[in-house]
Amino acid sequence: MGIEVRNIKKVFNKKTVLRDINFELEAGKIYGLLGRNGAGKSTLLSIIANRIFSDSGEVLLDGESVFENDNALGNMYLMSERNLYPEGMKIEAIFKNTELLYGAFDLGYAQELADKFGLDTSQKFGKLSTGYRSIFKLIIALAVPAKYIFLDEPILGLDANHRELFYRELVDNYVKTQKTFLISTHLIEEITNILEHVFIIDQGEIVVDGDVEAILDKAYLIAGPKEDVDNYCQGLNIIGQENLGSIHGNYIYGSLDDKRILPDTVSIERMDLQKLFVNLTNISVKGGASK
Amino acid sequence: MGIEVRNIKKVFNKKTVLRDINFELEAGKIYGLLGRNGAGKSTLLSIIANRIFSDSGEVLLDGESVFENDNALGNMYLMSERNLYPEGMKIEAIFKNTELLYGAFDLGYAQELADKFGLDTSQKFGKLSTGYRSIFKLIIALAVPAKYIFLDEPILGLDANHRELFYRELVDNYVKTQKTFLISTHLIEEITNILEHVFIIDQGEIVVDGDVEAILDKAYLIAGPKEDVDNYCQGLNIIGQENLGSIHGNYIYGSLDDKRILPDTVSIERMDLQKLFVNLTNISVKGGASK
Repeated sequence: MGIEVRNIKKVFNKKTVLRDINFELEAGKIYGLLGRNGAGKSTLLSIIANRIFSDSGEVLLDGESVFENDNALGNMYLMSERNLYPEGMKIEAIFKNTELLYGAFDLGYAQELADKFGLDTSQKFGKLSTGYRSIFKLIIALAVPAKYIFLDEPILGLDANHRELFYRELVDNYVKTQKTFLISTHLIEEITNILEHVFIIDQGEIVVDGDVEAILDKAYLIAGPKEDVDNYCQGLNIIGQENLGSIHGNYIYGSLDDKRILPDTVSIERMDLQKLFVNLTNISVKGGASK
Repeated sequence: MGIEVRNIKKVFNKKTVLRDINFELEAGKIYGLLGRNGAGKSTLLSIIANRIFSDSGEVLLDGESVFENDNALGNMYLMSERNLYPEGMKIEAIFKNTELLYGAFDLGYAQELADKFGLDTSQKFGKLSTGYRSIFKLIIALAVPAKYIFLDEPILGLDANHRELFYRELVDNYVKTQKTFLISTHLIEEITNILEHVFIIDQGEIVVDGDVEAILDKAYLIAGPKEDVDNYCQGLNIIGQENLGSIHGNYIYGSLDDKRILPDTVSIERMDLQKLFVNLTNISVKGGASK
């Protein structure tokens, strides 16, 4: 049971956006999809949700292709950065329409969330600020009956209080429904302890696919005088370096060799997920457009 | 020398957005303007930069009103969330236009930043993603010759690597130019150690105005069994509460009384700026629209 993404490839304007993407989503887990601006996250989510087509490969839901499969599509919902709603339509009307479209849309829950977030549902969509557009789209995503929910940059423009509230409501929703969430966000530090499993996509390829705990168990900062640090790190997988005055730091991703002797001058610290992400993806900066 | 904001008041659609705002910006400092979605930050910045008019009060630059004052206006630049550029115009053409408009616009520096951020300047503005629109606007704000730079949500949509790069380039620019920056952002935690002084605006009023260090010196979390914590906190300024299992926490803003005896069961910790902000502004959630 779950979603299988198999050999997905996508080319836009002669540029390969996704090359041979493979991963699985088990039912009832919260996943993170992390990547730089332009790494291909939105394209990948749109392909999984069948909004756009891949050039090759397939997406399976419980073993069946999602392509032209109404049952599969009714079980997946993508909240995207795009604003697909009529500017002049009121929020309450869009909620009603969504209810008509999805049947089991939980209108009461949507209204309850609107109250908590302070979203005035008599407002027109076009009048909402960036933050409240995100909130509105989030509410729909949490209240639709689909089992697989994909959130693309769900917290764009949200203030710190609203972000805290969102994380709480998301976990609450997850505990109650056991839905599967796949969340793409640039605010990695804040969301780390909600995520169970993470995919890091870089230049159209999945470069990390693992449980968050297991990943962080292999992420270290080795710091001290440069010579001692470099000696200790010989043969290890150095993914980045940083200096603070005369202190030199090497970022390591991979297991440390237990037999190495750690000099008194050198310390080992853990790296958090955001720092790991930045170091793993720092080299690749893309060409600006990804709209 | 500097900017004085005096008794600024603004009403939109019969709603008081700003009520009697007063503060000063000294030349050569980095300020933060923090507030919830809809608190009035963007309106305030637009008034200071003379893009919109207040209903009463005035803004002085070096003692002179900025109103219809070309000299003052040439010394202030506002990077706003609004996208004021023609969708079909190329980035390099907008850079050139800005140079014509501002004379001393540093085209070489703008190009250098574009390279660092991976912004393809042959792209049309309308083709940029949210993140790259922010990057483009940031680059202009850093390269214009104005002495007072106001940044409204400068890092909207930026990935973690680009945010790190932005903070570095901002500090670098500040050290070199000694310009004054007033920055409004929702990502408080990340920017805290760059800010020297902070204004927190809530419901159209400045509720905190102080140096970051001094503010954080008054921000505490008192945690332990509820009864002991509540006893210890009697008479202190409790701005929020939280529970973790049987542990109860009170958030305090204000000086602790040295004469109080701290029970062994109770601990005192520091609160960071984001947590302080969330607690100070948690009650007030606004009505959705602030576009």
